Amino acid sequence: MQNKEIRLASRPTGMPTLANFQIVDSDVPQPKDGEVLVRTLYISVDPYLRGRMREGKSYVPPFKVGQVIENSAVGEVVESRSPAFQPGDIVRGMLGWRLYSVVPAESLVKIDPRTRPLSLALGVLGMPGLTAYFGLLDIGQPKEGETVVVSGAAGAVGTTVCQIAKIKGCRVVGIAGSDEKNQYLRNELGVDATINYKTDEMKRALQETCPNGIDIYFDNVGGEVSDAVMPLINQAARIVLCGLISLYNLDKPDVGPRPQRYLLINSALMKGFIITNYMPRFREGFSQLSEWFAEGKLKYAETVAEGFENTPQAFIDLFTGQNLGKQIVKVADK
Amino acid sequence: MQNKEIRLASRPTGMPTLANFQIVDSDVPQPKDGEVLVRTLYISVDPYLRGRMREGKSYVPPFKVGQVIENSAVGEVVESRSPAFQPGDIVRGMLGWRLYSVVPAESLVKIDPRTRPLSLALGVLGMPGLTAYFGLLDIGQPKEGETVVVSGAAGAVGTTVCQIAKIKGCRVVGIAGSDEKNQYLRNELGVDATINYKTDEMKRALQETCPNGIDIYFDNVGGEVSDAVMPLINQAARIVLCGLISLYNLDKPDVGPRPQRYLLINSALMKGFIITNYMPRFREGFSQLSEWFAEGKLKYAETVAEGFENTPQAFIDLFTGQNLGKQIVKVADK
Repeated sequence: MQNKEIRLASRPTGMPTLANFQIVDSDVPQPKDGEVLVRTLYISVDPYLRGRMREGKSYVPPFKVGQVIENSAVGEVVESRSPAFQPGDIVRGMLGWRLYSVVPAESLVKIDPRTRPLSLALGVLGMPGLTAYFGLLDIGQPKEGETVVVSGAAGAVGTTVCQIAKIKGCRVVGIAGSDEKNQYLRNELGVDATINYKTDEMKRALQETCPNGIDIYFDNVGGEVSDAVMPLINQAARIVLCGLISLYNLDKPDVGPRPQRYLLINSALMKGFIITNYMPRFREGFSQLSEWFAEGKLKYAETVAEGFENTPQAFIDLFTGQNLGKQIVKVADK
Repeated sequence: MQNKEIRLASRPTGMPTLANFQIVDSDVPQPKDGEVLVRTLYISVDPYLRGRMREGKSYVPPFKVGQVIENSAVGEVVESRSPAFQPGDIVRGMLGWRLYSVVPAESLVKIDPRTRPLSLALGVLGMPGLTAYFGLLDIGQPKEGETVVVSGAAGAVGTTVCQIAKIKGCRVVGIAGSDEKNQYLRNELGVDATINYKTDEMKRALQETCPNGIDIYFDNVGGEVSDAVMPLINQAARIVLCGLISLYNLDKPDVGPRPQRYLLINSALMKGFIITNYMPRFREGFSQLSEWFAEGKLKYAETVAEGFENTPQAFIDLFTGQNLGKQIVKVADK
């Protein structure tokens, strides 16, 4: 068995490029007591990783230059030195961008091997699903008939937020960057109206699609799209700050209209979160998402890149909005 | 009896001037059934009134040009056509900037006539007190040992916020616009540290006075002072948006560093409010404030302008920070 891993070769300036990553041959590590050797099947690439490639304070400590990129992946247990896992088990964990990883058994979660595709455990039945679930329900507190606007609506989190908001009886307006994505949102996910932020005039489009104002804004992007939303929020509106993908590659100061005025005159709330805040409630979230999925109420969208070597490009493509739904890298067949 | 009233003569552009107000002789109105005639004793002038002098959406509908300015005041009942009030009763209500007002009985609240000074019912035992109480406790949720930063700390709301935060065992840093105000905050109200935003370099001053970061920011001012606070907030920080006095006279776009990034990476909350949101809990708030006041835990500061005709100037002076504590206009003796 030959191992490969992808390291951060240098810190990106602005948009990441392939030169920021280095694919390196390495040895397959040996598990010690309590550890498990896992073969990677599907890798998750996520926008928040861009923050970890930067020096300075973010959600989590930054990657060091030369370090293997760490992120969630699905794999198959090859060798286990823990009674909790057997060879052949399908697991999710922080395997990193590697073909083979050794990780502590307690950091792995078993996935039902009948899950199809297995990559669902990285999408609607994984962290993006939980992020949508807790962000929308706990911070957003949607009520039937309210208007929910979702930016980054065609992404992994956004597609799930749109569907949960529909399940809760809301009017849902999705903002995405192409007509194809927006057709998908309307035709497949039942989103009530959509806005293409690249071609529509945001202010007018929001006024037309939100005639009763905006009760919840689920923000995955930040920047000018969000600036346009603020003047339309209603009394007691909730703004869920989930991501700011428009800023992750920004190398100039993030300056714009301050939102405080709108929060003040509307007694509105704006709150950031990271999914690990909700760790104690993950079981509840997985259970409800799985139920909705089984009932056909929750569809999934994913964009799959084939081959481990294409992981950096799949990551880079996130920032130009190439993906519909969850961006996955398929590394190997089960 | 001769009545006088102060009307909005024209909408201010930028800073209000005396020319925006007109003092007019008028008749003393007659109460109908269910109404009460009240003689004004103390008038409250409040920054939020500036918002009502502007056309467009704010907390409450704008004043019309020619309309008498409506605001909270304390007065004495002269004639009552309601069984709920007797001549001589001391009351608080939306009397407006008038010597004599007729108002519906149900809009008045009786004040304990032993309250000294009676103007306390417009300050620490009135709406500013409640604003501090609910904003800090309900949105801010202070915990012992946390760091609370208060902008507009020497104002009516700010002085009360500082003291309640001290009662709750927090480290309190007050931001105000003069060394005299800051001495008062430290020496009389027990504030731990202060910043003069006019003379101190904000970033360095905040770093020095908040070595453990900022858990709660109670914002009365907005703008650049608040911009400097955001980079220092802690995980799970709470930003209470109470007022934005720095913006009320702004006639250019309110542009600055967007705060969303800091809210996101710290899972922090920012929430606006208006005191009427808490109407169902006013009794609780008054009761606790009165108890603290009786125990000597809550001191009051007020700046009193003498004479009804000086009401417009007292209002204008709010925006240059002339007042320490609550700005009151004394219209008549009891």
